[in-house]
Amino acid sequence: MADIDSAEPTQPAFPVPASVSPEAQRWLAMPPTRIRYPALDDTDAWLARIKQTDDYVLSRYGGHFPSVPTQETEIAGVHTFVLRPDGVPEGDTTPVYLDIHGGALIAGGGELCGLMASGMALTAGMETWSIDYRMPPLHPYPAALEDCLAVYQALIGARDPADVLVGGRSAGGNLAAALMLRARDEGLPGPAALVLVSPEVDLTESGDSFEINRAADNVLASLREVNLLYANGHDLADPYLSPLFGDVSGFPATFLQAGTRDLFLSNTVRMHRKLRATGVEAELHVFEAMPHGGFGGTSPEDREVSTEIRGFLERHRRQA
Amino acid sequence: MADIDSAEPTQPAFPVPASVSPEAQRWLAMPPTRIRYPALDDTDAWLARIKQTDDYVLSRYGGHFPSVPTQETEIAGVHTFVLRPDGVPEGDTTPVYLDIHGGALIAGGGELCGLMASGMALTAGMETWSIDYRMPPLHPYPAALEDCLAVYQALIGARDPADVLVGGRSAGGNLAAALMLRARDEGLPGPAALVLVSPEVDLTESGDSFEINRAADNVLASLREVNLLYANGHDLADPYLSPLFGDVSGFPATFLQAGTRDLFLSNTVRMHRKLRATGVEAELHVFEAMPHGGFGGTSPEDREVSTEIRGFLERHRRQA
Repeated sequence: MADIDSAEPTQPAFPVPASVSPEAQRWLAMPPTRIRYPALDDTDAWLARIKQTDDYVLSRYGGHFPSVPTQETEIAGVHTFVLRPDGVPEGDTTPVYLDIHGGALIAGGGELCGLMASGMALTAGMETWSIDYRMPPLHPYPAALEDCLAVYQALIGARDPADVLVGGRSAGGNLAAALMLRARDEGLPGPAALVLVSPEVDLTESGDSFEINRAADNVLASLREVNLLYANGHDLADPYLSPLFGDVSGFPATFLQAGTRDLFLSNTVRMHRKLRATGVEAELHVFEAMPHGGFGGTSPEDREVSTEIRGFLERHRRQA
Repeated sequence: MADIDSAEPTQPAFPVPASVSPEAQRWLAMPPTRIRYPALDDTDAWLARIKQTDDYVLSRYGGHFPSVPTQETEIAGVHTFVLRPDGVPEGDTTPVYLDIHGGALIAGGGELCGLMASGMALTAGMETWSIDYRMPPLHPYPAALEDCLAVYQALIGARDPADVLVGGRSAGGNLAAALMLRARDEGLPGPAALVLVSPEVDLTESGDSFEINRAADNVLASLREVNLLYANGHDLADPYLSPLFGDVSGFPATFLQAGTRDLFLSNTVRMHRKLRATGVEAELHVFEAMPHGGFGGTSPEDREVSTEIRGFLERHRRQA
């Protein structure tokens, strides 16, 4: 989630390292600005805050989203964007990447959901379904996960699960991993692969990087209040809310990525370890000095993340 | 390298996380103590300091090293320990793990070299050759690398390179990676696989974790003075001294491991990225809250590192 509140701007806590690209250095030179959140029961203030966040992202990145033919539709009653990059065939044998957007479980919906999916669709090089799941304050847990489950169920009805690949960034990584647990508990087959980009798999924020990288990550700060808004009284440690604490046996091959300055570094490496300890094929990629969410999207390092995701998806999608 | 100088003890800079094992928590609760090094030209003081370090490690861990049948020998004129765990067959078709010990490029030699190799020999489950390479202050660069090259050359004379696997921890990871460069430049065939455990691949210490984890790593502090002693006037950025800056094309499949609190986290992830970008098969394992060198050797996390190394070696040694 982008920072928009300059009420408490501070200077970067650490020097900008020479060990990253010039683009990344510029990104790291940005002072962190920390968001202050409304009281949990102030619905109007939350809605205003979320709109402000989305507007900021739109104004900052709006012109930079790549253009991909996109169709707005309803799938199983859930607003969903279907993107098909040029050259990707239609039909019920073309593989589908199910994309679950980020935004701290409160932002990144609507128009932004469709726009943010375009980069991922090009990275995947596949038909991409991006779920515009319902969010707090109006629709707290379990609405988002229910929406993801409904679209996933429709997708494995429309495709062989071997042609379905699922992924999410940040909050989307929370829902993507929780979806694996939920789908298995419902008796549904899993997808061919899972992509977790700096995933918010622990809403209790118990990992060590929430301390160590608190001053180092100039993009993300604790989402404690947001997580409480999302949970709406449910236990934050419930595996459907914090899939890090779930039984991950039977997960598909999983790609995990984070940065060394990432507030979610512990989320990512702990999930990687848990998957490996459970015998799940899982690969980890950690990028030098990268804060949560990358270096703005256009750095060589961001392209390298995309290249790794593309390679992973190529290796795990059914070979034609 | 262990900390032995309590002249400047400090309190742990961060709380001990609940996200690691009780054994790991006890390790993280130890206050960091920082070593002060002699002037570069004070050879006697360096020798005394190194002896003090080795004695400390022997007194602390001496009784804990597993017992593995060990033979002291000279290979290509270099003092080397040959370890053969029970059940490992002799003969010129049994694979060999070439172990390069850690100790900041100044310590861990002699008796300690043989003792420290025993855990690795059991992890590898192979005949293990551990090189007691020459070190500063009496033998600065390139003595250690020459010794490693000489033993490696003898080893690939005695074995099919497909039966040779090379690895090192910390300073040993520096020499193991530098050996890959040097051997290739000499026209020698590479080994079947390479293991780099929190490797000191950048003696210039340019990575971001040298800043971010300076207060978080309660085991290791900057080795700037030691690196200058080792380099003895050579350029620290020379790839034979800092293999991170070398051309890693043609490297064998590589295993890399570090911790999120590790001063060498950047070394490790940058080497991983460089290998991947060059098309080398490389896998990364990063452990929650782990400082440099693990959690003392007996924690569940330490055992998990060994399990991953064992699995990697099993996958990459020639199948019988």
